[in-house]
Amino acid sequence: MKTRGSLIVLSGFAGVGKGTVLKSLFETHEGYAYSVSATTRSPRPGEVDGVHYFFVSKERFEQMIANDELLEYACYVDNYYGTPKAYVDSKLEDGFDVILEIEVQGALNIKKKVPDAILIYMLPPSAVTLRDRLTGRGTETPDVIRKRMERAAEEAVGVEQYDYIVVNDDADECAQELNSLIRAQRHRTGSNKAFIRMIQEDLKRLTKEGD
Amino acid sequence: MKTRGSLIVLSGFAGVGKGTVLKSLFETHEGYAYSVSATTRSPRPGEVDGVHYFFVSKERFEQMIANDELLEYACYVDNYYGTPKAYVDSKLEDGFDVILEIEVQGALNIKKKVPDAILIYMLPPSAVTLRDRLTGRGTETPDVIRKRMERAAEEAVGVEQYDYIVVNDDADECAQELNSLIRAQRHRTGSNKAFIRMIQEDLKRLTKEGD
Repeated sequence: MKTRGSLIVLSGFAGVGKGTVLKSLFETHEGYAYSVSATTRSPRPGEVDGVHYFFVSKERFEQMIANDELLEYACYVDNYYGTPKAYVDSKLEDGFDVILEIEVQGALNIKKKVPDAILIYMLPPSAVTLRDRLTGRGTETPDVIRKRMERAAEEAVGVEQYDYIVVNDDADECAQELNSLIRAQRHRTGSNKAFIRMIQEDLKRLTKEGD
Repeated sequence: MKTRGSLIVLSGFAGVGKGTVLKSLFETHEGYAYSVSATTRSPRPGEVDGVHYFFVSKERFEQMIANDELLEYACYVDNYYGTPKAYVDSKLEDGFDVILEIEVQGALNIKKKVPDAILIYMLPPSAVTLRDRLTGRGTETPDVIRKRMERAAEEAVGVEQYDYIVVNDDADECAQELNSLIRAQRHRTGSNKAFIRMIQEDLKRLTKEGD
């Protein structure tokens, strides 16, 4: 009996290392799929349409909203970001655990629409580590770093609404913990309805035969 | 920062192999504690008071009910079974994951009183396997086996109210799965409130310093 995969919503402050951890997770384990989001923002160098994002026009995005083709969507820095339903559903049905990497606002919207989605927040070992990582990248101006830290402080308020946290100290270790956490969800009663039903019916049948 | 342990409520049909799986779990992993139940039933050969159960009189048990000293209690085949609060709480506080092995009725009462308790139901790979295991013991009369199967059929209706299921095909494998499932609960937001609070406050402080 094939177990339906879990919808995993992963969030975390900019600079916490989500990308590196997910790369490690996908390299070392099978059965995972990324959710590919739709967005109206322009592709960054190296980003491929249909792989990193579905890059769409504002008009097309608003049509997707109107047609209820999105699991969630949010507007961030003047651009739309959203999760196309059909893609996620087909992957879950095929037994994949689908990872959705989105902002707090989107994550909480998902939880309302899909109550059995698992919300995981990736935290740094400490706030100082986060600042050091943002500074250490060497790619951001002090002003951008300050804004990211401000945004992190704002976002942090929402962490308690998540189901789980993982702490990213070492990316490979964090990926292993994330994997254990996600695979444990396969045991959820809600993911095993068909099996439970079978046991219930067979017990009833065997009991009657015994009379 | 010490993480408070999880309260794990484990149930399963008579004959499913809970005892063997828990023995394997406790032998191969640290950080677990059994909850010791109070009961009014007589000790079976080899059962030690304070280890397997606290064996108490009916009068003492009813006093414990009156004093609200129990997390839950239930009556089964004319005997009381209950979970003393103080013992469980001290073990959780010490960071142990506490395993409570109780009937469906008691488990659902616990969930009402302790919403962050984790309810796990151990199932056989199939209903036929359960019957074969009960028969294979060679210690029960056909009449007892029939009654156990009937009771299993009744209990099975409650499985959907549990959080998770584990399937006991091989006891050692089941113990490993159970361990992963229980240890994953350490990542729950509710078990990490102090850490989350610390990150939130430090981010706020660092952001202010940056101004």
